[in-house]
Amino acid sequence: MQPFDPSEHPHRRYNPLTGQWILVSPHRAKRPWQGQQDEPDRSTRPSHDPDCYLCPGNSRITGEQNPNYTSTYVFGNDFAALQADTPDVPEHNDPLFRASSARGLSRVICFSPDHSKTLPQLSLQAIRGVIDTWAEQTAELGQTYPWVQVFENKGAMMGCSNPHPHGQVWANSFLPNEAATEDHHQHEYFAQYAHPLLLDYAQKETQSGERTVCENEYWLVVVPYWAAWPFETLLLPKFKVQQLPQLTDVQRDSLAQILKQLTCRYDNLFQCSFPYSMGWHGAPFNNTDPAPWQLHAHFYPPLLRSASVRKFMVGYEMLAESQRDLTAEQAAGRLRELSDIHYSEKL
Amino acid sequence: MQPFDPSEHPHRRYNPLTGQWILVSPHRAKRPWQGQQDEPDRSTRPSHDPDCYLCPGNSRITGEQNPNYTSTYVFGNDFAALQADTPDVPEHNDPLFRASSARGLSRVICFSPDHSKTLPQLSLQAIRGVIDTWAEQTAELGQTYPWVQVFENKGAMMGCSNPHPHGQVWANSFLPNEAATEDHHQHEYFAQYAHPLLLDYAQKETQSGERTVCENEYWLVVVPYWAAWPFETLLLPKFKVQQLPQLTDVQRDSLAQILKQLTCRYDNLFQCSFPYSMGWHGAPFNNTDPAPWQLHAHFYPPLLRSASVRKFMVGYEMLAESQRDLTAEQAAGRLRELSDIHYSEKL
Ligand SMILES: O=P(O)(O)O[C@H]1O[C@H](CO)[C@@H](O)[C@H](O)[C@H]1O
Ligand SMILES: O=P(O)(O)O[C@H]1O[C@H](CO)[C@@H](O)[C@H](O)[C@H]1O
Repeated sequence: MQPFDPSEHPHRRYNPLTGQWILVSPHRAKRPWQGQQDEPDRSTRPSHDPDCYLCPGNSRITGEQNPNYTSTYVFGNDFAALQADTPDVPEHNDPLFRASSARGLSRVICFSPDHSKTLPQLSLQAIRGVIDTWAEQTAELGQTYPWVQVFENKGAMMGCSNPHPHGQVWANSFLPNEAATEDHHQHEYFAQYAHPLLLDYAQKETQSGERTVCENEYWLVVVPYWAAWPFETLLLPKFKVQQLPQLTDVQRDSLAQILKQLTCRYDNLFQCSFPYSMGWHGAPFNNTDPAPWQLHAHFYPPLLRSASVRKFMVGYEMLAESQRDLTAEQAAGRLRELSDIHYSEKL
Repeated sequence: MQPFDPSEHPHRRYNPLTGQWILVSPHRAKRPWQGQQDEPDRSTRPSHDPDCYLCPGNSRITGEQNPNYTSTYVFGNDFAALQADTPDVPEHNDPLFRASSARGLSRVICFSPDHSKTLPQLSLQAIRGVIDTWAEQTAELGQTYPWVQVFENKGAMMGCSNPHPHGQVWANSFLPNEAATEDHHQHEYFAQYAHPLLLDYAQKETQSGERTVCENEYWLVVVPYWAAWPFETLLLPKFKVQQLPQLTDVQRDSLAQILKQLTCRYDNLFQCSFPYSMGWHGAPFNNTDPAPWQLHAHFYPPLLRSASVRKFMVGYEMLAESQRDLTAEQAAGRLRELSDIHYSEKL
């Protein structure tokens, strides 16, 4: 028998943050694709769109008018999935019909007044403004809610209904599944090794470089060893930090730089506005020890082969286990060799 | 404060099979949709397509020729995610870089020689043939592999690259995540209550009827209390049974009937070929006690509002928790009031 070669042979990898396995089938990237093709986003847009409900000065569906904002702008989601004043679910004991109370709120964060731009196309100063807004929102909502989920759905493929650059923040009166799972696994690791899991991980990845996409003084972007999505990345601090609001000025400037680099590389990969869902995870605002936690951001982009061919996480993936068609090392290599300069600036 | 109303107020529900929570936001169905619209599948196709690599007599990409099959036809996937002879992953101990060996195989199951039909349009006899094939494949592969995943990706939206009616079977040398999780939770429940979890659940759902879509002597289809996808269903036996091959003749005939009813209702909901991923879960073929298990099938369909507007499981869902915009009871009500006769037969 041949010796095992991870870039050739199917195998499983373990995600220590969630306790889930991922099936890696590297040889499968060779199969031809005859399925659905999505429309790549290569549109150019005006800086102000009179029909956009996020542009400065325009009206929203509720009739409210947006101010003439010049940097970021935050407002309450007109169709929030959670509300601050929902009554409690009455208790009952059937183990097969368990419900629990959920309160919270949901806000929209416009990244820029400029309708035509996306994150990679904003100036470092503007991205820094987005980071400050993320941190402010997290700090404010963390006073009331144990979990504050900052995220961005980018691109129609990721359910984003408006190309105006924006993200969201949802505050929760509970720890949602992913938060509870990452909390559990980071606590377990800390109990055993006395270091934060993701700080140890960042150190090992910096040393190896195999899965590194880009890196600066304070931050590291890798395709994690256990990535499920083809070009999934994990954005990690190289220093101890648990929550967004704790970031210092220099750490935020450095973060703006690496965010711009990463998102430019993404757009450059298939020369399109690269769709993804991204979001931040940090220590919950409850009374548990935050020491096991490291702040981090996940980027989950669906594209696999080109601007129009995505990875479908369907049948086997939904019923059995996530499966990927190239290794994390191969994906990192592709992203690493791209330029940091957005392709549109080179035209 | 108003009393809690599950059809109005956000709340969370617990999936006892997986231990995951789902955020239910019923009021959210009211929001307008301005995002991506998918092309509904209302195409009519010829019974034989000379370009289809699954049609009888045609050639596949490998050059192999399909026989002139007249019922179901099974062949090895030309681009399998798993192989029977992959070498073992060498052991190493870093808790952050864990890999494990994965062997298996993957086969395609053509449901019918008729290119123009989908499951709901097949005769009861033909559906019975599909059930027999699922059972045979499971029995055969279960002799070698602990997990045999039978599934179908239906529709381009679910990554299906060919409309010819077909599903797949992937055999695994390991218990994939979902299998291991359901195994764990069914064993825990059994240890506490001495009944299979899903048999107790089926009994309670039959009594209540609130979430029932359709039902016959042997089978029950419900939108489970903890459904994540808008029109997700769970197909449950009303009798003790752990694995597909154990089903008797009458139970299989009865299953053919309910499968046809369910998939007709799905197609009738938005008068289109309703996309979904579905698959079977049964007791693993390893040496653990199968008694806690009940055989069941999950249907995960993405459509939400119409034939072209799907639910996106993105940002919040990927980073925090699945979220749905209508209750399981509302979804079940919609499916229940539809006809069992396929809309195309009424035209
Ligand atoms: O094997 P197929 O049908 O070509 O591929 C489809 O189903 C597989 C199993 O769910 C997925 O891994 C693929 O992403 C999907 O496109
Ligand atoms: O709130 P939006 O952007 O309209 O909606 C989008 O993001 C939400 C949060 O991830 C999802 O629940 C929706 O399915 C998606 O379409």
